[in-house]
Amino acid sequence: MNNFGRLFRISIIGESHSDFVGIIIDGVPSGIPLFIEDFEIDLKRRIGGSLGTTPRKEKDIPSITTGIFNKKTTGAPLTILFENNNKRSSDYETYRKIPRPSHVDFVANRKYGGFEDYRGSGHFSGRLTICLVAAGVIAKKILDEIKISSKILSIAGEDPDMGLSLAIAAKDSVGGIVECRAENLPIGLGEPFFDSVESLISHIVFSIPSIRGIEFGVGFEATKLFGSEHNDSIIDLKGKTETNHSGGVVGGITNGNELIFRVAVKPTASTPKSQKSINWQSYEIEEFSIKGRHDLCIALRVPVILEAVTSIVLADLMMIEGKIKRIYEDRNN
Amino acid sequence: MNNFGRLFRISIIGESHSDFVGIIIDGVPSGIPLFIEDFEIDLKRRIGGSLGTTPRKEKDIPSITTGIFNKKTTGAPLTILFENNNKRSSDYETYRKIPRPSHVDFVANRKYGGFEDYRGSGHFSGRLTICLVAAGVIAKKILDEIKISSKILSIAGEDPDMGLSLAIAAKDSVGGIVECRAENLPIGLGEPFFDSVESLISHIVFSIPSIRGIEFGVGFEATKLFGSEHNDSIIDLKGKTETNHSGGVVGGITNGNELIFRVAVKPTASTPKSQKSINWQSYEIEEFSIKGRHDLCIALRVPVILEAVTSIVLADLMMIEGKIKRIYEDRNN
Amino acid sequence: MNNFGRLFRISIIGESHSDFVGIIIDGVPSGIPLFIEDFEIDLKRRIGGSLGTTPRKEKDIPSITTGIFNKKTTGAPLTILFENNNKRSSDYETYRKIPRPSHVDFVANRKYGGFEDYRGSGHFSGRLTICLVAAGVIAKKILDEIKISSKILSIAGEDPDMGLSLAIAAKDSVGGIVECRAENLPIGLGEPFFDSVESLISHIVFSIPSIRGIEFGVGFEATKLFGSEHNDSIIDLKGKTETNHSGGVVGGITNGNELIFRVAVKPTASTPKSQKSINWQSYEIEEFSIKGRHDLCIALRVPVILEAVTSIVLADLMMIEGKIKRIYEDRNN
Amino acid sequence: MNNFGRLFRISIIGESHSDFVGIIIDGVPSGIPLFIEDFEIDLKRRIGGSLGTTPRKEKDIPSITTGIFNKKTTGAPLTILFENNNKRSSDYETYRKIPRPSHVDFVANRKYGGFEDYRGSGHFSGRLTICLVAAGVIAKKILDEIKISSKILSIAGEDPDMGLSLAIAAKDSVGGIVECRAENLPIGLGEPFFDSVESLISHIVFSIPSIRGIEFGVGFEATKLFGSEHNDSIIDLKGKTETNHSGGVVGGITNGNELIFRVAVKPTASTPKSQKSINWQSYEIEEFSIKGRHDLCIALRVPVILEAVTSIVLADLMMIEGKIKRIYEDRNN
Repeated sequence: MNNFGRLFRISIIGESHSDFVGIIIDGVPSGIPLFIEDFEIDLKRRIGGSLGTTPRKEKDIPSITTGIFNKKTTGAPLTILFENNNKRSSDYETYRKIPRPSHVDFVANRKYGGFEDYRGSGHFSGRLTICLVAAGVIAKKILDEIKISSKILSIAGEDPDMGLSLAIAAKDSVGGIVECRAENLPIGLGEPFFDSVESLISHIVFSIPSIRGIEFGVGFEATKLFGSEHNDSIIDLKGKTETNHSGGVVGGITNGNELIFRVAVKPTASTPKSQKSINWQSYEIEEFSIKGRHDLCIALRVPVILEAVTSIVLADLMMIEGKIKRIYEDRNN
Repeated sequence: MNNFGRLFRISIIGESHSDFVGIIIDGVPSGIPLFIEDFEIDLKRRIGGSLGTTPRKEKDIPSITTGIFNKKTTGAPLTILFENNNKRSSDYETYRKIPRPSHVDFVANRKYGGFEDYRGSGHFSGRLTICLVAAGVIAKKILDEIKISSKILSIAGEDPDMGLSLAIAAKDSVGGIVECRAENLPIGLGEPFFDSVESLISHIVFSIPSIRGIEFGVGFEATKLFGSEHNDSIIDLKGKTETNHSGGVVGGITNGNELIFRVAVKPTASTPKSQKSINWQSYEIEEFSIKGRHDLCIALRVPVILEAVTSIVLADLMMIEGKIKRIYEDRNN
Repeated sequence: MNNFGRLFRISIIGESHSDFVGIIIDGVPSGIPLFIEDFEIDLKRRIGGSLGTTPRKEKDIPSITTGIFNKKTTGAPLTILFENNNKRSSDYETYRKIPRPSHVDFVANRKYGGFEDYRGSGHFSGRLTICLVAAGVIAKKILDEIKISSKILSIAGEDPDMGLSLAIAAKDSVGGIVECRAENLPIGLGEPFFDSVESLISHIVFSIPSIRGIEFGVGFEATKLFGSEHNDSIIDLKGKTETNHSGGVVGGITNGNELIFRVAVKPTASTPKSQKSINWQSYEIEEFSIKGRHDLCIALRVPVILEAVTSIVLADLMMIEGKIKRIYEDRNN
Repeated sequence: MNNFGRLFRISIIGESHSDFVGIIIDGVPSGIPLFIEDFEIDLKRRIGGSLGTTPRKEKDIPSITTGIFNKKTTGAPLTILFENNNKRSSDYETYRKIPRPSHVDFVANRKYGGFEDYRGSGHFSGRLTICLVAAGVIAKKILDEIKISSKILSIAGEDPDMGLSLAIAAKDSVGGIVECRAENLPIGLGEPFFDSVESLISHIVFSIPSIRGIEFGVGFEATKLFGSEHNDSIIDLKGKTETNHSGGVVGGITNGNELIFRVAVKPTASTPKSQKSINWQSYEIEEFSIKGRHDLCIALRVPVILEAVTSIVLADLMMIEGKIKRIYEDRNN
């Protein structure tokens, strides 16, 4: 379903080529100052235009249309919309006949009986990640002391610069690994069953298009270590550990050390290279290549999205633990 | 919260040393034949006793106490309980003073203010995975044609036999990688936001103790491939792909090919090796070693648990799509 | 939270004086033809302008902005927005100083710490019922054979015409009783715990502003009957009953007879009569009268809203039972 | 589904004739002292045996089997079970052939395809209200200052004593009206959409078998009053109102005045009087009378159940507002 969260609760709407995409956030405390400018940095970090990302450029100015009054949140559901100004529908008509490999064309068609909005991947579009980024801006505001950051570790299995050069030389799309960290988390967020911190983060992370894997702490490398090597010795009464192989989560619960996880982003499905797929009308396998504006490396956009979804999860967990007041600032007091 | 699922919905209860652990399943169709024997194989696959698993042996006979009548499900919530016969509480008193590294002792204490049932890790215990296995047995029953299987790919980064020999020689605990596959899935399970197949599977997978990572299809390796290498060409009208690097999921939706994913299981925290941690009473860092019955390699138990949680997710998705009748067999017709 | 429903799931947004109010519906089957005209009759039934309702007139043309393509639903979340054209904010500034009796001024202020959008009651406004009506139009579409109707039984305790004459003569606001019925329901909708048909209907009914009570079948009158008088004898194999004192629900489950319930609508809080309340600044109790455009009898608008919320519940229950296909019409077949 | 609540969350299990009935409560704060004796008074208030209630007597001793350690709650899900000792299955075999009027025999059979546990109404049994009472005991504990009480207003439309005399004389079952009140509620519990206080209370109230209606404040009588008569003037800065026709809830939100509501309980379906229904085997309408142990007036048991479900809702709302700590008492501080 299009909702996520228990107390800080988001709902996502829109398609690549509808009038707008948007996000509704229920449970936002009242009294939080909120300006269009608050979104600027994170939206810019996500936007296309740099080497390896699509030249399609939306203006991406958020319209905060409900839940706000006199530049402050009211406590009512917050709606943030982004207009879709820059639509070129004609690019997509071709893929009605030949479903693109590793693209949603085929599954969307079968799931929705042919009624899906196929333009720009419709509701599956990476365009919707702008909504996650916007919700992340709100979440970050209420997380106060907690600092969340994210960076690209590798592109095409190489140092990011090297990886991108490879992609451009090969005229082929590439993927990458992105890491996210959160500092100053309180001990005790998360539940043993079924809402471990990893459960909630991975749930929302796999809503980001193109994610193929996630690992916490040392992750898959943990399987090569002995227990005595992997275990994190506790060295003070606040729970600080000597090493942080667990990535800040033990038993599904934050342990007060830095939260660390990494995600694998697959190479963009829309590679400029020639590919094969079946033509639904002729029943023949055809070779074709994808035109249009597409990111060569979608991983480049992922860091700010990853921060956003992590913030969304943490804001919810902080509210569940009663660590965030429902009234951010009380005018009556 | 202790619930998972939308229509096929589980709730989990119990601690390592309470009278029993158990699972409640709501939404089970009525009229499914159900016998104690149905659980035997999967419970046996999970049980300790083999090389690398703990010698603690529970009898593990399920009591199906509600939702059943004349050996068939009634449509009311199903309750399955497992007695905890084999408790040795005394083992655990020590860890009240010295929280074990990478164990829940510390976080549970802080989260619950010192009131947690610390015996055998309480509600965090691996013992509770027996409940997941039991729910998996029910889920598998209603999944009919869909075949789910799981196997260990590596132990300690090596071939499983080799990895276990290493562990025994080193007298240290080890982890491993476990793979799960599901065949004959219909096209169209899962949602773009926020209930992708990967989102739901990873959500419940990270409820299994000791999981550190999950990847679908080629997973993290995807980040080293070009798009033209990674993409799966569609070669027939049923959506069969030439390769299956996507692991059967595109855009969060099953594409009719085999579902494939792998999880990283960390080395058991309770290694026999000497370790360091802080003593909460003396404030000093002490060296100590863990006694008691513990698995040297918890990954050995994971395959059947992984099948179970995957079945739980798939049963729910199949019900959501209306592909499983609420009355399994209608006596009135 | 601002969501309701399990498979057919609505989220509501907006305030009386925000740019728009709107509703998001997740889980709508794909392939349903949808036109602006489909909303016309029900929106008109709800609109003000008749005797006893406010002269404020919105144009009330729905914008279906997401989840639709080529005039058919796509299966993605449907967003329906209504512009708020006819706002007169100045009316409301007064009530910041003197919270109106039986109005939300006071509770909203305390709940949201003074940051609530108080104009026109903000998110509490009766304006938001237009969203419920719109969702009802969609729900009715997928309910096919099921016929839902609603009518006013009494105004001010009298025959409706008489009751309104009384109100106009007295220059005071009045309430009323509204009944809703649904025919052709299948047997078996609803759950014993906690989602009985009455539970779900009353849950959403009490979201309609001004509702003070609800009763099913003979309702409160049942308390005056003997069991032998109240019981409904079953007279055929389809479950038809001789009488229908139960209003079509037994044990929380539809029994195949007509669903019947009634709601009590209180007199509009905004009566033209002089009233008393405390002035928050002077701390003195003042006498004042409410200006502005208000319904003398809000009950007049309730029938179509009641049909709508009933349809929403029934559509959800029908989907849960697998009685409504996720693809309304399959283009591929 | 068999769950209710967002943070204080209950799941209900069992049938009249299964080994036990029970309730699971997730989200209970840790550190709450809990003894068997705590349940005694409320369980006794509910039990049969007095004039007008069934002579069936269960021992009704709660087994608190999970979530407790050293007589205090641990923060893990709490399980409370009640054995079903006093089962007489033979009574019920008859009703397989002739579904009792206004009883669940018919709908349960159709909903579950003939596989329902029909003994003693199975999962629909009034027996399960003992679980609600037990959860209410926990909820009351964490509600501290908030005082919840309930009483019978009328039986058979008369003063309670008179109503019962009538029933005994007529040898027929009767219903009644029960009122519930809660004092010392904070202002601001509840949400405008869709979780108004009335929405949540009515949702769970209609899970109690035999409830036919609910009204808040003056309820249906409100429809006979003018607005100027019905409105509650606010007379101090804490929101105290001169009258309390609204029953402590305005706009779905508690206003700090006493919460007041009433429910209509229908006459027990199992009247000793002769009745008619169709025989499923002969297809003929037969006259018959119900044997076995049944309450002449089920309303007599309702007060404590009503208090319980109200407490459950209020505990959840208090936790959502962050007014109840997740650790009831912190041992570490």
